Amino acid sequence: MRAEIGEQPDVLARVLRREAPRARRIGALLRRRGAKLAVLAARGSSDPAAVVAKYHIEWSVGAPVALAAPSLVTLYGARLGLRDALVVGVSQSGRSPDVVEYLRMARRGGALAVAVTNEPGSPLARAADETLLCHAGRERSVAATKTFSAQVACLALLASAWADNARGAALGEGLAQAPARLRRILAAQACARAWAHRLAASERCVVLARGFAYPAALEAALKLKESAGLPCEGASAADYLHGPIAAAGPGLAALLFDPKGPGRPTMRRVAEQLKHAGADLIRADAEGWPEPLCGLPFAAQAQVAALELALLKGRNPDEPPRLRKVTTTW
Amino acid sequence: MRAEIGEQPDVLARVLRREAPRARRIGALLRRRGAKLAVLAARGSSDPAAVVAKYHIEWSVGAPVALAAPSLVTLYGARLGLRDALVVGVSQSGRSPDVVEYLRMARRGGALAVAVTNEPGSPLARAADETLLCHAGRERSVAATKTFSAQVACLALLASAWADNARGAALGEGLAQAPARLRRILAAQACARAWAHRLAASERCVVLARGFAYPAALEAALKLKESAGLPCEGASAADYLHGPIAAAGPGLAALLFDPKGPGRPTMRRVAEQLKHAGADLIRADAEGWPEPLCGLPFAAQAQVAALELALLKGRNPDEPPRLRKVTTTW
Repeated sequence: MRAEIGEQPDVLARVLRREAPRARRIGALLRRRGAKLAVLAARGSSDPAAVVAKYHIEWSVGAPVALAAPSLVTLYGARLGLRDALVVGVSQSGRSPDVVEYLRMARRGGALAVAVTNEPGSPLARAADETLLCHAGRERSVAATKTFSAQVACLALLASAWADNARGAALGEGLAQAPARLRRILAAQACARAWAHRLAASERCVVLARGFAYPAALEAALKLKESAGLPCEGASAADYLHGPIAAAGPGLAALLFDPKGPGRPTMRRVAEQLKHAGADLIRADAEGWPEPLCGLPFAAQAQVAALELALLKGRNPDEPPRLRKVTTTW
Repeated sequence: MRAEIGEQPDVLARVLRREAPRARRIGALLRRRGAKLAVLAARGSSDPAAVVAKYHIEWSVGAPVALAAPSLVTLYGARLGLRDALVVGVSQSGRSPDVVEYLRMARRGGALAVAVTNEPGSPLARAADETLLCHAGRERSVAATKTFSAQVACLALLASAWADNARGAALGEGLAQAPARLRRILAAQACARAWAHRLAASERCVVLARGFAYPAALEAALKLKESAGLPCEGASAADYLHGPIAAAGPGLAALLFDPKGPGRPTMRRVAEQLKHAGADLIRADAEGWPEPLCGLPFAAQAQVAALELALLKGRNPDEPPRLRKVTTTW
């Protein structure tokens, strides 16, 4: 897991170099077809990557984005009207049967079906019209790290190309800087190591964020659960204020992902209330990153924290209990 | 909270009687306009109600449904292309500023904007083209109970009317039986009381479900957090198998919502693994309910369990710490 976390700057650079032309082609195709919405199907760590893409596409393209509920298709026989849609299946292995079936249904229904996967010959890639590849090499740790950021990059390239406007260009420029910036984040892991010690002293954790940082909160919570076995929930700070904050108290660590943008007032408000409730507040920052891409540094720091916490707790971060690398659900 | 839980059969009956004509009119309008998708904006307990509607609409109408990320509109200035969309703002009070603003943006952009609220004169109702009302009377407990099921009923009426097909008719028939069925569930609260005792002996909880029961797992987790202060997460059993199950162990109570439909194999698989991990399994059922409406009895049983657990823990269920009835986020 440590090695794979460290590979991310190189993986990102490869994705940008090798997938940008294909993303541009798909973007042009979407504009020509007049695609009006996107639906993203994913499980596990691919799901937070898909949520990042929801934010990028809605912000830059202005097309509404839905997250798929695969069971409606695989279990209840729903057939969705997706003729005007981009439908993306996101899966590291390309072998999540429900995600593959969702993409097949969408393609049969006339959607442009795109696979984002690390495996070119996988069932997901074969079910798609177009494939964007993660170029991450084999990922051996059960917890996805380098493939998460590669998926984010593939999807951000796609959003940028589809948007073809100032916001899309800003996203593209931010992406071009991401490998070097991520290398600096990963070189300075002291901070995330300190988080691990504080998390080790906590019974449970909540990861809170707002706006573009929100999907990274979901991914961080997932990583802390799977790698380190820490009970942990990721949530929007706004949603958290609407109810879950009633369960806050001593023993709770709150990891706050605040990119210091327009969501700052909500983050401050939730931090004050959590402090008052006796939670241990851990503040992450993403200084120097354009806000739409702040999920990358936040998630990378959480990966390191989850790894270090697993080691502190005597768990093997590469092989969490009850998990395999490929989980098949229908 | 106990009184308001008990009012639900009457509230549901009022919604069905008084809102069905308006729902039919909106459904006909959506078909005439050729609406191709829906976007639902909600916070707090209204959010799980919106997720129920995602399942109902995708299943019966076949239109893809997105859940709104309000921050993109309120904080980052996104303007979404929603001309072909139904956009619904769901809010008990009708005063969640971000949900109101989302509906305004959608209406300006040409969407059919519908409010689902308990307050006819609220800002949300004023921002909408059409309003469906909860007829719940004043809700005094901070935790939403009767307004949750009323929102589910309003939205199910709308899905049924929009679909205008066999599935829509089945949804409508199930709804007509719901008040009487819910009365029977609420008369037999012994079961949910027994859950409360087991939950009191647990450090934390996960509520798992698949398919149509999934939104009720989100709502149950929210209720257990806000009313009873129990650390609790609601999740799809399929998503849970893709990672979070690694954090399961003794001290965890797992509340399983299994309507015994096509999601059964996933529920069995997750139950086996949780048992092996040492979790306390609590099984709820929704016998006699048509599966698309199983969220109503599951949520109602969870409301009773949350109330009883709050009382066991010496908490006032009507006034959870750090919460007010109306939470305003932007």
